[in-house]
This record gives sequence, structure tokens and C-alpha cells, in this order.
Amino acid sequence: MLKVVLDTSIFVNPDSRFIFGNTPKEALNNFLDQIKDKKHITCYIPPSVYEELIKFLEKLPPAKKIVLLNRQPPSSYQSSVPAMLVYEFIEEMRSRINKGLRLAEKYTRKGLKRTLGPDKKGEEEIIKSLRQEYRSALREGIIDSKEDFDLILLAKEINAYLATADCGLIKWAQKLGITCINAEELNALCEEKDKSC
Amino acid sequence: MLKVVLDTSIFVNPDSRFIFGNTPKEALNNFLDQIKDKKHITCYIPPSVYEELIKFLEKLPPAKKIVLLNRQPPSSYQSSVPAMLVYEFIEEMRSRINKGLRLAEKYTRKGLKRTLGPDKKGEEEIIKSLRQEYRSALREGIIDSKEDFDLILLAKEINAYLATADCGLIKWAQKLGITCINAEELNALCEEKDKSC
Repeated sequence: MLKVVLDTSIFVNPDSRFIFGNTPKEALNNFLDQIKDKKHITCYIPPSVYEELIKFLEKLPPAKKIVLLNRQPPSSYQSSVPAMLVYEFIEEMRSRINKGLRLAEKYTRKGLKRTLGPDKKGEEEIIKSLRQEYRSALREGIIDSKEDFDLILLAKEINAYLATADCGLIKWAQKLGITCINAEELNALCEEKDKSC
Repeated sequence: MLKVVLDTSIFVNPDSRFIFGNTPKEALNNFLDQIKDKKHITCYIPPSVYEELIKFLEKLPPAKKIVLLNRQPPSSYQSSVPAMLVYEFIEEMRSRINKGLRLAEKYTRKGLKRTLGPDKKGEEEIIKSLRQEYRSALREGIIDSKEDFDLILLAKEINAYLATADCGLIKWAQKLGITCINAEELNALCEEKDKSC
């Protein structure tokens, strides 16, 4: 029996979901159809991640399909994580926070060097570009939400694969010995085993 | 027997060190003199924090004094921390990173609104003020270095008090059930028990 914890990115990121469908709704529905009769694979999704996922759907799949996703939360109040993971996380955040300050300085100096006309043309473009650079420097490649941590803790707790397209999740899940798979591999695992049955 | 893990802030922060001396060097030396003959109190300092501390001293105290500080590191590779602490840390960092972006936006807009003369007068003042606001928003009240985490892990591991003046350390140490004391209380604990002996 194969256990897989599912991240939203599998059904939401355009680079991933095309494996199962053109829209998040279609991708999820097709995936659920695909696993419906599979006895060798059980899928899990933490409730917090499920809430995230359904925001991308205009309409929920019918209940008989939805129950194919086990909405199991990790036992957060009973679990623990190795101290070394926290060390690495603190060091990583420290270096990212420094990068954030360098970016803020860069853009403030940029602003001071540039004079806007009375219509303030250009201000929003500069702010937009600041936001992009800042988010990429401080958010990408790190666990930055409790939903991310729910996925990692649950996969660890039930000894499951983690299906995700998120580089930050993969990096931190691997530190805890979790096997990560992408959408294509998830698809292959569903099909392959089935053929051999 | 009372165990106390010592943070540099006790001997370095002006608001704390005056209890023991006028300079970090004097404060540490006086403290070591004070505990020299005390059998009821044992002091610990993680090696990483010790390295931080000696940067504030022009000269090391003599070896016979220094050995009164047990330079014990926490067993980082064997310890674990409750998952809930990591959840709280991730959420706290998330909200602080958002604050950092708001600050970067504020200063970039400020820069765009202001025209500097050819001598660029005022630029460094603005950057200085950005740095202060950013550091206070992103660094204060959080564990932001491996030295901080060493202190918390060691105090937990050996079941010791943590002597510190750092609000961030106190907040996170208390989540793990660690008793925190300030310089004045540390001083009182050394003296009090002695009288009763």
C-alpha cells in the first residue's frame, strides 16, 4: 500500500496540473477518477491544505469523490522535529532577512535618485518590481506557512510520499527523510502498479 | 544545586551589566569572583555564546576564573523540539517578513517623493532610519541566531535557569518551560543562598 500526501501545487501550478487537466478543478477531478478504483494507493491531504485547494475550485467535486482524499491533520501537539532542522531554519531566515534589508536599501536609493513627475508615473512599476524581488528573496525555497509544515509533518508521521511541485517544500521535506514526487511521477505510480495487478 | 545558563546580554547590555560592573570585562570578572567560592551554583555557557562574549573583552580573564564557566554545547544532533514551536516560529517569521516588505515599500515611496541635491545630502540618514526600523521589525523579539538557539537548547537539556536580558530569548525559552532570570535576580540568587548556608 502506497501512501501519498498531496500538496495543492500538484493541481494548481500550471507546470504540474497539465498532467491531470487544464484547470485546477479538472485536474483534481481527473485525478480522483484515476485513483477511484486503485486499491494500492491512498491519498492524504491535511485539512489546512484542503482549504487552500478548494479556493482554486469554483465547485467542489461530489462527496463520493472527495472522500477519496483522507483529510488527516498531523498530530502537531504530539510531534517533535530534530533540533538541527530548527538551527538550519534559523540560519536560513537570518540570511534571507539580511537580503531583504539590502533590497529595501537598493530600492530606497533608487527612489532617491529618481524624480517622479507630478503624475507619479513609474512609482507603481518600481513598487511592483520591489515586491517581486523581495518575495523571491525571502519566500522562495523556504517553508513559509503552517500549511507547508502540515504537509511535511503529516508525510513524516504516516511515512508517506509527498507529492509536490514546490522547491521549498522538497528541500525541507528531504531533510526529514521524506520521499518527494512530482505530478508526472504521481501519475506514473498510479498507473504502473495498476498494470502489474 | 542551581544550574544557570548565561547569555552575553547579562555582561554586555548596559542595562544589565551595571549590576556586576561598568564594562563587559569588569562585569564578567566581578561575576566570576562572586561565584568562585559558591558551591550551590554552577554556570554554563555554550561555546558559540562564549565566542560572542569574548569579543567584548579586551583581555580574557585568567584560566582559573574562566573554568568557572562550563562551556557545554547542547546535544544538537540528539535533541528535538515540539512541532508546535516550529509552527509558531514559521507564523511569526511570515508576519515579520510581510512587515519588512511594507517598510521597504514605505521607504521606496519616501525616496521617490524626495529629490536630493547633487551632494545627495540626506540619503544616508534615510538609509540609517530604514535599517533601524527594519531590524526592529524583523529581528527584535525572535530567536534570530544559532547562539540564541544554543542557549535555549542547553537550558532545556540540563534543566537550568536561563540568565538573559534579551526579550526574544525570554519569549521563546518560556514556550519550552525554561525559567528565565535577569542580572539582578542572578545576583540575588548567588548572594541569597550563600547567606543561608
